[in-house]
Amino acid sequence: MNQELHKLEVRLGYRFRNADLLAEAVTHRSANSRNNERLEFLGDSVLNFIVADELYQRCPQETEGALSRLRASLVNRPSLAELARELQLGEHLRLGSGELKSGGHRRESILADALEAVLGAVYLDGGFEACRSLIQRLYQERLGRLPAASELKDGKTRLQEYLQGHRRPLPTYEVLSVTGKAHDQLFRVRCTVDGTDLSTEGEGGSRRQAEQQAAEAMLALLLGERGRQQ
Amino acid sequence: MNQELHKLEVRLGYRFRNADLLAEAVTHRSANSRNNERLEFLGDSVLNFIVADELYQRCPQETEGALSRLRASLVNRPSLAELARELQLGEHLRLGSGELKSGGHRRESILADALEAVLGAVYLDGGFEACRSLIQRLYQERLGRLPAASELKDGKTRLQEYLQGHRRPLPTYEVLSVTGKAHDQLFRVRCTVDGTDLSTEGEGGSRRQAEQQAAEAMLALLLGERGRQQ
Repeated sequence: MNQELHKLEVRLGYRFRNADLLAEAVTHRSANSRNNERLEFLGDSVLNFIVADELYQRCPQETEGALSRLRASLVNRPSLAELARELQLGEHLRLGSGELKSGGHRRESILADALEAVLGAVYLDGGFEACRSLIQRLYQERLGRLPAASELKDGKTRLQEYLQGHRRPLPTYEVLSVTGKAHDQLFRVRCTVDGTDLSTEGEGGSRRQAEQQAAEAMLALLLGERGRQQ
Repeated sequence: MNQELHKLEVRLGYRFRNADLLAEAVTHRSANSRNNERLEFLGDSVLNFIVADELYQRCPQETEGALSRLRASLVNRPSLAELARELQLGEHLRLGSGELKSGGHRRESILADALEAVLGAVYLDGGFEACRSLIQRLYQERLGRLPAASELKDGKTRLQEYLQGHRRPLPTYEVLSVTGKAHDQLFRVRCTVDGTDLSTEGEGGSRRQAEQQAAEAMLALLLGERGRQQ
């Protein structure tokens, strides 16, 4: 293993048996056809599961909806990119020349994807328990100071705050349909933001739930746009 | 453990240490405030991970996109409901009276959710390897006859076939925006179906990729509607 990647191993606190896996995990698709996209697929799913398990154990009183919101707050792109920056992962990325010139090693999406790929590589190299320990270590502080789920702002609140912070008009929610029998209705809602051409939809067993889902989707769209402009 | 639930254990090929977990896994929210929703959250994530791992190992040549499509075909609601029916899970469901009267034990969404909850319960009761063996056993046949990912129809094709099969007009795709620099563009596309008020969006690094995502979302909406009408 080269010296540079060994530094990353030290920061991860994990020593690879097969160094090629780590090299693959830091290789962006712009650099090579053998890149980190497959490892990212694996890493994303092992991360989602291990964080779900941690939350299930630590938050015995929370509903499934609250657990989902907590997990989303831990594994969303900004959180993953922050963890990647703490690991100085950007220094190790292998990027194509276009990405290099445009500062790809600082881009949130590239950092977040590479961190997931590293987790997938650790799982393949060392097995489930090794990967779990690493994720527990990476998330130790964040799991130790989880917000009460009630404090965790819901999608509509976060969307509203985001739009206010960016001086954009507030969102509008419109019920598209209500189907199903009285005791098991499905609401579908559309969320739009004036002055943009964006629209998202959500569904759920209540109007509120459907609105939350549509708001989350809108926020993801808006944050995705911002990520791309960085 | 009661006799009935023991039959389910036999079909699962897994014997619970803590029978309460299995009872919780088959309890729908309509029956009790202590229901299977938290277990479903856990089970969904362990299932997604284990199937991702199986596909990663079995399909070394496939791209991340192909792996995602293969996984979706294995863990989507209809597939889960089919597995649940093979296990005769519906017989064991604990439903509220409204759901009972309206045939909730046959409803796809309830069956699929309960199966995920059972997987979550096995994980908690027996650990990761026990859960992995069960999932491998349940999926053995389906994993053994995986379609070549190239054969697996993409979202646009499946959406088109679904709409033709239901005598509805074909979908329209419209590019909403293209952002980012030339080597790293993000396309956003809207999919609509005439004669419905449905619209979905997708994004991706190419127009085609964004259209596929929007088509998948539309298909999920349409199938969701159908599930509710059952």
